[in-house]
Formats: sequence, C-alpha cells, structure tokens
Amino acid sequence: MSRSEETICAPATSTGGAISVIRVSGPRSIDICNEIFNPRDQRIDLLDQKGFTIVFGEISTDGVIIDEVLLSVFRAPHSYTGENSVEISCHASRYVVKKVLELLIRKGALAAHPGEFTQRAFFNGKLDLSQAEAVADLIASSTQSAHKVAVNQMRGGFSSEIARLRTDLLNFASLIELELDFGEEDVEFADRKELKSIIVNIKGLSDRLADSFLLGNVIKNGIPVAIVGKPNSGKSTLLNALLGEERAIVSEIPGTTRDTVEDTIEIEGIGYRFIDTAGLRDTSDIVENLGIKKTHDKIDQASVILLIDDISDNPESVNIRIRSIRSLIKETNKRLIILINKTDKALPGKIDEMAGKIDLKDKEILLFISAKMKSGLEDLRKALVEVIEKEKLNSDDVIITNIRHYEALIHVSESLGRVLTGLDDLLSEDLIAIDIRQAIHYLGEITGQITSDEILGNIFKNFCIGK
Amino acid sequence: MSRSEETICAPATSTGGAISVIRVSGPRSIDICNEIFNPRDQRIDLLDQKGFTIVFGEISTDGVIIDEVLLSVFRAPHSYTGENSVEISCHASRYVVKKVLELLIRKGALAAHPGEFTQRAFFNGKLDLSQAEAVADLIASSTQSAHKVAVNQMRGGFSSEIARLRTDLLNFASLIELELDFGEEDVEFADRKELKSIIVNIKGLSDRLADSFLLGNVIKNGIPVAIVGKPNSGKSTLLNALLGEERAIVSEIPGTTRDTVEDTIEIEGIGYRFIDTAGLRDTSDIVENLGIKKTHDKIDQASVILLIDDISDNPESVNIRIRSIRSLIKETNKRLIILINKTDKALPGKIDEMAGKIDLKDKEILLFISAKMKSGLEDLRKALVEVIEKEKLNSDDVIITNIRHYEALIHVSESLGRVLTGLDDLLSEDLIAIDIRQAIHYLGEITGQITSDEILGNIFKNFCIGK
Repeated sequence: MSRSEETICAPATSTGGAISVIRVSGPRSIDICNEIFNPRDQRIDLLDQKGFTIVFGEISTDGVIIDEVLLSVFRAPHSYTGENSVEISCHASRYVVKKVLELLIRKGALAAHPGEFTQRAFFNGKLDLSQAEAVADLIASSTQSAHKVAVNQMRGGFSSEIARLRTDLLNFASLIELELDFGEEDVEFADRKELKSIIVNIKGLSDRLADSFLLGNVIKNGIPVAIVGKPNSGKSTLLNALLGEERAIVSEIPGTTRDTVEDTIEIEGIGYRFIDTAGLRDTSDIVENLGIKKTHDKIDQASVILLIDDISDNPESVNIRIRSIRSLIKETNKRLIILINKTDKALPGKIDEMAGKIDLKDKEILLFISAKMKSGLEDLRKALVEVIEKEKLNSDDVIITNIRHYEALIHVSESLGRVLTGLDDLLSEDLIAIDIRQAIHYLGEITGQITSDEILGNIFKNFCIGK
Repeated sequence: MSRSEETICAPATSTGGAISVIRVSGPRSIDICNEIFNPRDQRIDLLDQKGFTIVFGEISTDGVIIDEVLLSVFRAPHSYTGENSVEISCHASRYVVKKVLELLIRKGALAAHPGEFTQRAFFNGKLDLSQAEAVADLIASSTQSAHKVAVNQMRGGFSSEIARLRTDLLNFASLIELELDFGEEDVEFADRKELKSIIVNIKGLSDRLADSFLLGNVIKNGIPVAIVGKPNSGKSTLLNALLGEERAIVSEIPGTTRDTVEDTIEIEGIGYRFIDTAGLRDTSDIVENLGIKKTHDKIDQASVILLIDDISDNPESVNIRIRSIRSLIKETNKRLIILINKTDKALPGKIDEMAGKIDLKDKEILLFISAKMKSGLEDLRKALVEVIEKEKLNSDDVIITNIRHYEALIHVSESLGRVLTGLDDLLSEDLIAIDIRQAIHYLGEITGQITSDEILGNIFKNFCIGK
C-alpha cells in the first residue's frame, strides 16, 4: 500500500488549552474511529454518519474510557485533505492525546509527517502549492500586513496571477510550435512584433512580481531594526518601553499573550523586529559599545538603525558616532534614526542647542526622546513607518513573500529575456521555444503543476505536525 | 443583563499547533457568529443551521477576510454549556485568533473568565460541581492512574456515591423530623438502634472516602521522590537516565513531547515526581551535600528517598549516611532506597562485599546500579512500585483526589460522629437533627447542591480560559 492510501493521524493543536483536536485522514479514517468510539446516542452509527456533522461519545479501549469527545466527520471529497477525515475534539490532556493517538495507530493509522494533511490536500487538488505554502505563512503571521498577504495567497490571488501568465505563455508556445510543425512548408511566420509585445508584457508582470519580494519579505519577516549606542545611553530602557506597550496591547485579549513574538512590535500593520537584543533585555547594557564587531553585524542585518545618544553628551562626539555609523551603512538603503535620549534630564534650551549642532544628511531623522518617561515614542513610531513604502502595502497588488517563488520568477524573467533576445536576433523558432518552455516550467513550479519530491519535501518539512 | 445572559467567547486551544478553536457560548452566540461569517455555500443560513453540524466559510470584517474557518454549531440544551454554542476552528495564527476574538467582542460577546464555560455547564445542570472539578483534573492528568480517577469522577462515579450517602441521610433526617413534629404526642420513638446502624454505615462510607484521599493525592500529584547523596555520587546521571528513557517513550508520539512534565516519570501508571532537581539537571552536582538544610527540606517533602552512594566508598561511611537519613525520616512512612552506584567500575566480588557490610532495617531496599551504563534501573523501578499499595489502584473503589472534597468529608464524619454520640447519650432529636443537617450540607457542598460564590470562585478561577 502506498503512503497516500494509508490513513494518517496527528494532534492538530498543542495541549496548552482547554481542548485538543486530533486529526485523522485517509480512506479508513471513519472505520478506524468507529473501532474506538461509542456514540452516546446508541442509535447513531458512525459509519453512516454524513459529512459536516458532529457526534458526541466516548473513546475507550478494553473497557477503559479514555475521554468523552466530539467527532467531526468529513466525507471525501468535502474535507480539508479531500479524503474521508475525522477531527477528534478531546480534553486538552497530554495523557488523553497520547492515548488516543496510540489507539488510532494500534488500529492501523500512521503518525502523520509534518504538513502531510496539507500535502494530501495538494495531491487531491484542493489547493495548489503556493496556496499550501500560504497556509504555513498564515499560521506564522503575526501582523496585519503579513496576515493579509498570506490570506490573499491562500485564497488563490497569487495563483491566479501565475496561472494567467502561464496561459499566455502556453498560447504563445502553441503559436511557435504550430510554426515549427509547418516550418518546412515555409508558411508566413506569425508577426514577430506582436509576439514580442506579448512576451514583453508577460516579462513585465513577472518582473513586477519578483520585485515585490523585497516588500513581501519585509512584510513576512518584519523590518529588521538595530538599536546601537554607547553604554548607558538607554538602549534597554527604550526597547522595554517599545515592547512593553506592545505587550500590554496584545494581552488585552486573554489567552493570546502566550505566543507573543519576542522583540517584535507592530506599527500600522507592519512588524519591526529588533535584532540581537539578547544583551539589551536586562537593564545593564554595559557590555556593548560602538565600534565592536557585534555592532557591525547588527548594522549589516538591519534595514533601520536606531542610534541612541544622551542629551548630556558633547554634540561633537554624537556627530562622530553618526559618521561612524554612516561609514558602516555606506551606499545601502539602510535608514538611520538618531535618538537623543534622556530629555527629562535636560536643562531648558539644551534640546535646541543640541539640535542645532547635529549634522544630518538626507533621509536621516533626528528625534529627542525620554525612553524613561516614554516621551517622544510616538514620533519614533511615525519615523519607523516612514521607512517603508506604505502605499504599496495598501494596494491590492499581489505581493510575493516566498523565496522559492522569487527564485522561480527570476528564472522566468531570465528565460523570457532570452526569448526577447532570440526574437530580436531572428533566432530559429525551435530555440526560442526551448526558453518559452523553460519559463512555463518555472511558473508551473510555483503553483505545483511541475513538482519534484525534493521541492515537495522542502516545502512540507517546514509545516507543523497536524497541518 | 446578568452575566449569565451574556454571550461569552474565548480561545479554547493555545496557538502552538495547526488549528485553533475559539469557543462562543450564550443566547446570542449563533447570531453574533452570523454577523461576521459568510458560508461558502451561499444556500446555507447559519441561523437555520441545526445543532451538531459544521459549516465551512470565511470570517471577514469590512471586506477584509480574516480566515477560512469551520463553524461547529450546537443548539441549547445539547451543548457543553447547555446554551447555544459555536466552536470556530481557524488556522492557529496568533493574529487570526486575536482578530476573531476582537470581532466577536465588537459584536457584543464578552471575553470569558477562566472556567466560565464549565461554570455555565454547572449552572445549567449539565454536570455537578465534582464533575466540573474532574474536567480540570482530567486536563491536568499526566499518568494513567490520575487519568482514570479523573475520568471516573467526570462521569459521575464519585457524585453518585455522594448522592447515595446524602439520600440515606435525608431519609434519616426525615424520620427524625417526623418524630419532632409528633413530639408532643409522645409517639413511639423510631428504633434508635436501627437508626444508629444506618449512621454507622454512612459514616463508614464517608470515612473510607476521606481515607482514599491519601492515595488520591499521590495519584493526582505523583509520589514525591528525593535523590540525595554526596557530590559526584552520580545523582544527576541517575536522574537523566530515568527521565531520558521516559522522554524517549513519550516522544514516540509526535507532537506530544512539548508539554512533558519535567522531572516526572510514570511507572505502571503512577507518577513519580523528583523534588528540587534544579541543581541536578546539569552534570555538576558538586554544590549539594548531605547534612545541609536543602537535603533536610527535600527529605521532608518526599515519600521516597533515594540515597545514592559510590561502590568505591567505605561501607562504614555509607552506613553513617544511612543512619543520618534515618534520623531525618524518624517515625514517618517515608521509604528509603539505598543505591550503590558505579558498579561498572567495581572489581569482582566488590558488590557482595559491600552488600554484606551495609546495615539494612525493615522495609529499606538496597540496590546496586550503574547509572552511567543504565544497569539496575529496572530493579529500581520495581522498588519504586513496591512503595505504593497498587492493589487499591486497580480496584474500582472511588478514590478522592480533591482536598475540597476531603475537607467536606472530614466535616461529614465529624457531624455523624456527633450524631452517634448524641444517639448514645439519648440527646434530644432536635439537637441530633442539627448535626444530620450539617452532614447533609457538607455532602451537598461536594456536588454543588449547596454552593456559595466563594466556593464557585475558588473552583473556577483555577480553570484555564476557554474551558
């Protein structure tokens, strides 16, 4: 029996809550559950139970009752996987979950691999590969923007865009291949100009999708932010102030605080991820200093650098530090925000005096704050928002967030670039056709029309068990 | 509107898995869900949906789709709470769960308090108080025996025992009160002997239940075990060997390892909980030594003491340590198991020589092991099993595990003791009736026929959110 004919089971929730759900899917899922389950209402026969219904009863073995459970029954093809499926909702006891899984396995189910339910959904045509990937992204999403992109992709927005490109190319390839078939008869060759404009159009779409990855990556993983500054400038106080407010907001909804992503804040739907804050989380940030390798590394990884200095510092030494950061940023797109901290301790006029003496360059932002008193944080948030091109976020353009899609699109654009050169150079149709077929292949890889065990393995191994 | 008329919502799972479940319960639960939910099949109207059915669709707000979800619909009184209820099964994204809860709350639901769903089930007569408590015990249960006791209690085994005692007492009270009513007419007083034998019988049952708490507590919380020994005797190696194998067993079922209770092993269905292993978990157990306060405290808390010594030690110094432990154990029921470790390094004959020189007292156990080579661990497990009266576990006697029930039963027995004295002393019926009423009251407290806000508050505050 091949793996896909087997019935699989796995916990679909972690056991930290009130209830746990165990998923069973495959041809024998309802039969296997029937062997270990007694409906409370003796008139009910699980084997006759319709899809999208729930049955209450007990799971037991050898006369020992394991738990009172609800079984949700799904019939192929109307289930997540497209197979017969049962979801067992039991009490969230580690012991109960373990026992139920043991029983299912004893009755012939196999322990599911990570992502195997979604993989089956893919094989059964319930979703394509990019939609499957979006499921994982959706689960991992922790900000409004990441969530929006994942939901759109899960619902097929991206897939339909790719499908459109692919259909256009397939039509184009048919035209070329038609020509090849009639090549010997030397029929009138299709208008190369028209064909070229089609390819330019398709390549433009592919390029635009690939370009969106820069933004997509930021949306998915958050904008990396480095906090640097000399000892005792207040780095840890600033971090705690920013994160502390975030925590308070999140914890308003009970039960959702547990999984709060550490050291990430959300501003206007975008995540900002603070890099290498290990040494900052306690209030002694004495170890770190400007100029050491660690700071270099942090700046390397960051898109935004928060340089924090003290209002009591000599403005010239602040300027020196700004220049040293600039030399590390070089010609990249990294943005520098200079924070002059501890304004609560400043004498009147000191802020204006300092502001007049700091040398700012284009796009650099200077802010005066008191991390301790939490003043100026709102300005800092606004500055962080300015860093990202928000208008793109609010458009309904498809944004790609997956490096696999990005790489495939780069290959598509390369292949199409060769097609264009070929058309210009009056290359023979059969050579042009090869590049078109290649572009079609790479587009097919994105949605899964073309797959390999390796691609599938890489995608689904990163899923959690039970998904 | 009183709280019980409100519709409540809460996450019922933690967000660590593939799916998350959000519970909604109360009169408006289906209406509220209908406001934020669009069924995929447009012909479906959620408001007309029957109980015990599932609907697939989307949760959205202001045109933004939050997630594709399954809604499980339950209609009063056929639900966990006895009210109209909906369980929303969504992707296990923290963001999604937060958004869905926000939406529900915006549409008029209240965030549920810990245990509020179960509390409603209690108020609606779906389960009594001891059954509600068993739900929490079941979720917390991590061993076979703790699970068995919790399931029995959840299914009402204990409640029916208590109900029986209470009915007997109520009948008795009626007899007495009948006499009181006719007291002036000086009717023949009911046979005091017969009444006494009924009370003796009821008190016997109540005593037996109270006595079972000792075992029940062990079942619920595990048997506390202390590992003591001089530095480098191999305490940490032993602990890791015992726990390591346990971990391996547990992790055979994927997805169930995450919540493994630290430093507890299960042998033949019973949990053994190692006390204060903080200093033992790394391999340097240098800090700890016999005779210090920490060891005293550990032995105080333990039911079983594992004294670990080295085969290369002088037998007389081993005997000295045994005697010093004995002096700490004194007249308690604590059991001492002496482990002579590092037998892998022993010369031939050394074990017999050592065995001959160790002075054992009654019930003490001497074992030779090699924690490093994992030899002798099976004997140790057997010795640990001997400590507990297994036969009681395997009987179907009701075992109580809840200190609230224990205290109530103690009160019941005290009251009944006074009744017996009263009967012997020919006390007047009205005085006897007071004590009987008191016993009835305490029995009612267990199952919740008699409750106070304080009792309920104490019980449900320890529940998790969403239960």
